[in-house]
Amino acid sequence: MSLSYESSGVRYDQLDAFKRACQKAARATAQVLHGHGYAEPATTRGESAYLMEAADHFLAHVEEGLGTKNLVADAVYAATGKCFYREVAIDTVATIVNDLITCGALPISVAMHAAVGDSGWFADEKRTNALVEGFAEGCRTAGAVWGGGETPTLGGVVEPEAIVLAGSAIGKIAPKSLRITGDVKAGDTIVFLASSGVQTNGLTLCRRLAAQLPQGYQTPVGFGDPRSYGEALLAPSVIYVAFVRECQRRGLKLNYVAHVTGHGWRKLMRLDEPFVYEITNVRTPPAVFRFLEQAGPISRREMYATFNQGVGFAAYVSPEKADAVVAAARESGYDAWLAGTVRKEGARKAVVVPSLGLTFEGDTLQVR
Amino acid sequence: MSLSYESSGVRYDQLDAFKRACQKAARATAQVLHGHGYAEPATTRGESAYLMEAADHFLAHVEEGLGTKNLVADAVYAATGKCFYREVAIDTVATIVNDLITCGALPISVAMHAAVGDSGWFADEKRTNALVEGFAEGCRTAGAVWGGGETPTLGGVVEPEAIVLAGSAIGKIAPKSLRITGDVKAGDTIVFLASSGVQTNGLTLCRRLAAQLPQGYQTPVGFGDPRSYGEALLAPSVIYVAFVRECQRRGLKLNYVAHVTGHGWRKLMRLDEPFVYEITNVRTPPAVFRFLEQAGPISRREMYATFNQGVGFAAYVSPEKADAVVAAARESGYDAWLAGTVRKEGARKAVVVPSLGLTFEGDTLQVR
Repeated sequence: MSLSYESSGVRYDQLDAFKRACQKAARATAQVLHGHGYAEPATTRGESAYLMEAADHFLAHVEEGLGTKNLVADAVYAATGKCFYREVAIDTVATIVNDLITCGALPISVAMHAAVGDSGWFADEKRTNALVEGFAEGCRTAGAVWGGGETPTLGGVVEPEAIVLAGSAIGKIAPKSLRITGDVKAGDTIVFLASSGVQTNGLTLCRRLAAQLPQGYQTPVGFGDPRSYGEALLAPSVIYVAFVRECQRRGLKLNYVAHVTGHGWRKLMRLDEPFVYEITNVRTPPAVFRFLEQAGPISRREMYATFNQGVGFAAYVSPEKADAVVAAARESGYDAWLAGTVRKEGARKAVVVPSLGLTFEGDTLQVR
Repeated sequence: MSLSYESSGVRYDQLDAFKRACQKAARATAQVLHGHGYAEPATTRGESAYLMEAADHFLAHVEEGLGTKNLVADAVYAATGKCFYREVAIDTVATIVNDLITCGALPISVAMHAAVGDSGWFADEKRTNALVEGFAEGCRTAGAVWGGGETPTLGGVVEPEAIVLAGSAIGKIAPKSLRITGDVKAGDTIVFLASSGVQTNGLTLCRRLAAQLPQGYQTPVGFGDPRSYGEALLAPSVIYVAFVRECQRRGLKLNYVAHVTGHGWRKLMRLDEPFVYEITNVRTPPAVFRFLEQAGPISRREMYATFNQGVGFAAYVSPEKADAVVAAARESGYDAWLAGTVRKEGARKAVVVPSLGLTFEGDTLQVR
């Protein structure tokens, strides 16, 4: 049987209906902002970060969670004694701040939420030390202070051996002109920044696959990657803050950016306005994705509809600035390349990848 | 057997050790704030809200969770069909913003974190509508915008039928003189603000008691309260934002405030500097606490060491302002009264309640 994300138990339709109900009720609370000297920008709802507008700056607020990736760390720890809680702590910070920067805000403060099912979780000092070190390292990489957090024991809510890793960030855009507004134009160039592997999405499917493999997470990835499947999954996510900051410093305007997470490459058409995003420079995905595709088996289409396939972040820029944006990315430590072009085809919204024979029409992505 | 909070499975010692490790690592990230135009105030770590200082304001950041109170709502819902998710959503906002205001910040934005074990949780529209309405209502009461959130499905991490309710807030103090710094002086008056019941603390113990009762949550509270035990537990928490805001408007300086949560009345000595807090005006606690004490049985000492006993928030003010602070509270909708006095006894830190024969020395509270 071929694996798909729906069959792995995550029902995005029910979740998305709830999210829309939340957004509607949340929007109705916006008038209280005036008493604080802020207003809600017309287009902030549904974006990855919530923005509040003042006379000379925007405040940004993100609440985000790691998902189920730490279950992979738990399984690898139990089987091999290798602790990857430093890595999943970095992932936790990454998932928060990579959402925050999509509006052009730089994170000032990141708070940790670590909820356990049993306070005995904290008795393992190797694991807790790794968690603490990784969270601090993630904050430093993001240029943010670790501004406190919460560590409740939730017996009966969280599974006895498990931990929920999540958190929030405060960011700021100043001057206001640095806001990333989504003013993409036909002819814009798409710049891709590499991921380190699956990062934080598609882990439910990855865990289901592990359960089917005779060697589980110990299965060698192959395709030139010496790591085990589990270790490859647990490579910590790339934090893309320095890229956005460097583009701001160099005066390189980012028309839009996408944090490539759930929904894989379909996230590339996250913008409301309809465009066709044509990806012409497709790299062979990192070994862990080739392993997933073969071992699942998972169809090529499902792979790109679910995973980042080696692309963690995308920037949409005016073509004359594209080379400079790639240079800014590389000089701030990222692997980046010119990946494709945005074009207008009337009301059509789609991501097309001709070299792979893949097309995702707009109706395959509902995230608002 | 007499019930106590330790015996109910929450080990504060392991949690507190982890919290201290987090605080140490978090403190070491503070220098990055300078790049954002902020600095970390010397005394903010260990307080209920994290503060960042700019030239003309403080930003405040809080990450908080509801705890296990929604398990009570689940049990009552299953037994009676009465849905209390509006109430626990208000509780969730309350626990976040009541921590935030302890430094004098008013909440601008509150984000929801709702993590489920199975996305089927969202299929019950009665429950999801109540959750959405309650969260919006809590935000409006707090004078904050509902600024987005996160709703992950975490199979294998969260129990299949459960939901983790948590969130974060951004607040601001401007002008900076409105910061509540903890400059308590001997002779200060302690003002109490009433709670609505257990609010969000001691629920693990409350649930354990329910399991011992033949009628469980359906047991009548008695003591003049017509509600069942479950319904009394699920009275939504009081949100104290309007009290702090009204004191600020009237120029009534609050030297310190305490959100009376975990550790019950021991939280009244949360301030580092040693004082003796003498509570002389003790009201009979609301019926639900008398029920808990009798039905447990739970010792009088344990009751005050664990529960708020009818007191959700305490303010420490100069004696000449105490009547005006009580008036500000009452006129903004709270039940408030003069409760006691702060005095100096050398290095002694303690909460003493002579009329009840209770004394909690400083070593009974370690929360930093």
